[in-house]
Amino acid sequence: MPTLRLVPETELDRLRTAAVDRDARLALLADACRLNALVAVKRAGSGHLGSTFSALDLVAHLLFEELDVAERGFRDPERDVFFSSKGHDVPGLYAALFALGVVPRERLLRLRRLGGLDGHPDVGVPGIEASSGSLGMGISKGRGIALAKRRLGRDGRVVVMTGDGELQEGQNWEALQAAAHERLGRLWVVVDRNEVQSDKPTEEIVALGDLEAKLRAFGWHVATVDGHDHAALRTVFGRFRDEHDDVPKVLVARTVKGRGVSFMEHPRALAEGDGTYRWHAGAPDDDAFDLAVAELEARLAERCAALGLTAPALVGVERETPVDGLEGEPRSGAGATARRRVPLRGEAEYVVEAYGATLLELAALRDDLVVLDADLASDCRIRAFELEYPDRFFQCGIAEQDMVSTAAGMARHGLLPVVNSFAAFLGSRANEQIYNQVSEGSRVIYALHYAGLIPAGPGKSHQSVRDVSLLGALPNLTIIQPGSSEEASALVRWAVEDARESVAVRLVIGPSPRPLDLPGGPPAVGRGTVLRGGTDALLIAYGPVMLNEAIVAAEHLAENGGPSLQVVSMPWLNRFAADWLEAEVAPFEHLFVLEDHAPVGGLGDRLRAALDGRPVEVFGVEGWPACGRPDEVLHHHALDGASLAQRVAAHVGRAAERVGSSSPR
Amino acid sequence: MPTLRLVPETELDRLRTAAVDRDARLALLADACRLNALVAVKRAGSGHLGSTFSALDLVAHLLFEELDVAERGFRDPERDVFFSSKGHDVPGLYAALFALGVVPRERLLRLRRLGGLDGHPDVGVPGIEASSGSLGMGISKGRGIALAKRRLGRDGRVVVMTGDGELQEGQNWEALQAAAHERLGRLWVVVDRNEVQSDKPTEEIVALGDLEAKLRAFGWHVATVDGHDHAALRTVFGRFRDEHDDVPKVLVARTVKGRGVSFMEHPRALAEGDGTYRWHAGAPDDDAFDLAVAELEARLAERCAALGLTAPALVGVERETPVDGLEGEPRSGAGATARRRVPLRGEAEYVVEAYGATLLELAALRDDLVVLDADLASDCRIRAFELEYPDRFFQCGIAEQDMVSTAAGMARHGLLPVVNSFAAFLGSRANEQIYNQVSEGSRVIYALHYAGLIPAGPGKSHQSVRDVSLLGALPNLTIIQPGSSEEASALVRWAVEDARESVAVRLVIGPSPRPLDLPGGPPAVGRGTVLRGGTDALLIAYGPVMLNEAIVAAEHLAENGGPSLQVVSMPWLNRFAADWLEAEVAPFEHLFVLEDHAPVGGLGDRLRAALDGRPVEVFGVEGWPACGRPDEVLHHHALDGASLAQRVAAHVGRAAERVGSSSPR
Repeated sequence: MPTLRLVPETELDRLRTAAVDRDARLALLADACRLNALVAVKRAGSGHLGSTFSALDLVAHLLFEELDVAERGFRDPERDVFFSSKGHDVPGLYAALFALGVVPRERLLRLRRLGGLDGHPDVGVPGIEASSGSLGMGISKGRGIALAKRRLGRDGRVVVMTGDGELQEGQNWEALQAAAHERLGRLWVVVDRNEVQSDKPTEEIVALGDLEAKLRAFGWHVATVDGHDHAALRTVFGRFRDEHDDVPKVLVARTVKGRGVSFMEHPRALAEGDGTYRWHAGAPDDDAFDLAVAELEARLAERCAALGLTAPALVGVERETPVDGLEGEPRSGAGATARRRVPLRGEAEYVVEAYGATLLELAALRDDLVVLDADLASDCRIRAFELEYPDRFFQCGIAEQDMVSTAAGMARHGLLPVVNSFAAFLGSRANEQIYNQVSEGSRVIYALHYAGLIPAGPGKSHQSVRDVSLLGALPNLTIIQPGSSEEASALVRWAVEDARESVAVRLVIGPSPRPLDLPGGPPAVGRGTVLRGGTDALLIAYGPVMLNEAIVAAEHLAENGGPSLQVVSMPWLNRFAADWLEAEVAPFEHLFVLEDHAPVGGLGDRLRAALDGRPVEVFGVEGWPACGRPDEVLHHHALDGASLAQRVAAHVGRAAERVGSSSPR
Repeated sequence: MPTLRLVPETELDRLRTAAVDRDARLALLADACRLNALVAVKRAGSGHLGSTFSALDLVAHLLFEELDVAERGFRDPERDVFFSSKGHDVPGLYAALFALGVVPRERLLRLRRLGGLDGHPDVGVPGIEASSGSLGMGISKGRGIALAKRRLGRDGRVVVMTGDGELQEGQNWEALQAAAHERLGRLWVVVDRNEVQSDKPTEEIVALGDLEAKLRAFGWHVATVDGHDHAALRTVFGRFRDEHDDVPKVLVARTVKGRGVSFMEHPRALAEGDGTYRWHAGAPDDDAFDLAVAELEARLAERCAALGLTAPALVGVERETPVDGLEGEPRSGAGATARRRVPLRGEAEYVVEAYGATLLELAALRDDLVVLDADLASDCRIRAFELEYPDRFFQCGIAEQDMVSTAAGMARHGLLPVVNSFAAFLGSRANEQIYNQVSEGSRVIYALHYAGLIPAGPGKSHQSVRDVSLLGALPNLTIIQPGSSEEASALVRWAVEDARESVAVRLVIGPSPRPLDLPGGPPAVGRGTVLRGGTDALLIAYGPVMLNEAIVAAEHLAENGGPSLQVVSMPWLNRFAADWLEAEVAPFEHLFVLEDHAPVGGLGDRLRAALDGRPVEVFGVEGWPACGRPDEVLHHHALDGASLAQRVAAHVGRAAERVGSSSPR
């Protein structure tokens, strides 16, 4: 890992208070924040640099100049409130809060680490005004804050940053119309109009068209400005302050994705990526990092020189032990902190790759198979399908509700739709639409990507530990989760070719920690597979992440003379073959279920119902899913192999004690 | 009940094929359908007449003239597809399908009855192309159908009817932008622009503003027309057919809510209702019904005379045994089929009234209490709050996601928001927004109205039997449901004054079938109340509807020498006091849980977890909730008292047999 050098607090203070041209100073500060955000993301191993960089002039202008939080602090109820709805730009916001002394250095350097800074905004971090990361909620929240300020007679504006692709999400338009109706003149929205969402131009995904006309038609005062021109920003914000007291205001800030690092900047980067933008998420490799740092450092020096200031003296920061297994990861931030905890034999395995490859094979066999996506094609491994079958690939943009109901319409008219998004968004945001579709008796396959606790870097907006509970009460939906590539392929094939009802397939997004010997042939509905034999207790688990921990737990116990633990992989989360289940559990006194899910509403609940009266100890993700590296987060939730071994041993021990104490004395 | 007289099939055929002016004939047919829809709604005891009447000229024009389904039938994949997204207008659509011979007379006369016609559109009914009733999904579905037709090279247009208030739902704007992006020229949307949503003008609830400008900005071809003028409709549809092949088209049809019955027509009816519109839902009383029939029959005669046709000979239809307990019901369709199955002592009791009254009392005590509504103020019994505290009442329109995130913003800035909608919509459509809010650690109270199976007339879009499962995996949310007015008041007070986390309160919308003696003082968290003592088995239930059935079951068993059943009311659905629970269940060999919910994800699952290893037999709503009268639907699901008594007796009997057969011989 290359040397990491930050612009330290004292130097930021010096620059921030220098008596020089204010707009030039803001541009300088924005670049200083870019450098610090880049360092934080490099250390974290992931982060959304493209969006961070496009937004940073806006963030700097608002926090260092336009708004009053630098003076009032973040606890004053009369303060101006600023937050990012898109949330991807949070490394830049953290860097700005670091410059204000609100986020301490130790924490900035623990981006996406336990006890550090969440991968997406979370109100647990000082200076973060709203939790976000799932898109489209910000304007509504801003509306609520503005209404509260009005109701309580409090001072202060509310400024919400949104992405442009984010505006595809329908909730924005609900909020825009309502805020106009309520005449919330102190609510401002700043659209970071960088024209690229995830890895493609917004105009390709789902065109916004004449965005300004739309916003105007929704009753907002609209201005457009170069989002990197501080003089222009000063003028437009001044006008916003002085005019249209009872009309909410939106600034469409034309920005450049990746601004500040030449090869990350939008037109060039898009061309170099053959039409896809490479810097949306993830961390740059060492070479790219060095080049980016060199550019930013040179520009800082140059800007300082022009203002007659000494260039900031950077300070080296401690390196972190490199995290293994970072190669071959999904390009996006979601998967980027997934970590192989057990060295892999051979190549890294991703169940989601098998999913994508199987879809491609099935598409060759059946013409009715179509794929729908909500702007996550790379992460969902359906890019190959998109390229091979463009007329059967439907890009819906960031609009999960529309995507699901669109699939519902297709399903009743001759197509078999496979709907893709992250489980956290698809299972919850489109929940009623899924209910409606399933109630029509048609067949849709829902691919719930990034299911489960890991990777934990993106934080609780992205980790999906409720999706099984959200779909579990639907009468006609089978929920499955493969543990290996072979099984993923077999289950997807089954879902497409054999299932009679709609199917939800949970897919882990990161690399599988170890290869698992699971059946690849036609699946036996409702039956699991013994992965490791044992005699004292039975642990049922699912998905590559938790199956690995289960095996580690069994190995731990075996090594330490603990109970002999049988590990069973159970890919069917709400369908059980009664005979298999009875026979499987019968020999064991102790039955444990390991959930890649909350303890409520997962496999454990369903097994308790199926085995009514049989004690089932459930190990699940208790409380809010923590943000951090996989190992630290699994340990935090006591779901790593070592913790599980202890928990199993303790449980068996307590039971033995109970038997002992109740036996005749 | 007054005499009910239909325009019969033969007469409809005669009118439909008469060689007269086509536009005058369409107006005549629309009125004939109005009369038949009115009769169906009167028999059903509920239905949305205002919206049915405003839409009927459009429906008649499309089905009898413009589209090809009358000739092609509803199974031809090349057919034009028409459906209503708002779904409230379905009585008129049924009447039109009756006129086409698609819906038989027996079924038309069984609106909102088991095996009849669903209260909102369901694809199980012939001629219904899409299930709807929850708003805002239709354009997306139409988009899906249009994409499927394009992909499969099939003929046919797709025409989606929406409401105007419905356009507040954000999903519409997702679909509008996506359909424009995909250049779906064969997708048409017809907006029934009657300017009144539920019981107030759309401009008062959340103004649509310049709707045409919005639609145009979203890339659609827009036309505006008098939606009752068939000549104008003919012209505009002709143009739609011939022009703009690759641009989707929207017709803003200016209509009059309640059109066709003078005192139900919008400007007059609104004035007579002092600013609220009385005919949105429910059925007219006998006097109003007679007046409406007289007007419609007179107009039919008049129109026929003008065309030189004999007026249609009406046929009397069998009356239904009047349903008791229809007085004092909620004005809206949701509650209107709720039926007292056991005569009440004194006045009808509604837990939701106690909820509304308690909010009002609490509002006087605390300034920070605010109420948010999604256009269901009357049904949610918060109209009094709105009138008393207009500056603390926030009307959000039909936009549940925006409402919840708005509340989230308020909750972090000094207010305690109480968020209202039907459970089916709030728990599912705004699920991710609720997750986000709760994760911020702020406090919001969610009032989940119309929770549970009953009333069953509106059908599965409105019946909420999944909401507990949808919220159950949230770490910091208490879910409660009162069984009586006293308890409702006590629990709401607790939620506002004492709870430390967010709270979801499930509320039955209809009348309570019997008064229950439940505690009204400060509630004991996690503890239930014994409603009826018993010695052989314990049945735990919640909510006025199911507690009544539980008591009826216990009475049945007592009368028939069955097991002695103890009935416990448990208002805490996910929080249990361990000592109370242990003590309560200890004396009983058999433990039953009666859910006003699906068997998955409700109280039963949580009790199984809390009592790990103790058998718990769960009686819940299996499969899709049926549509019909309360008695027939409870019986259908084997959840009425008599069925429950049988199920309990059978279970206890089987257990006794098992004990018998395993005892030494």
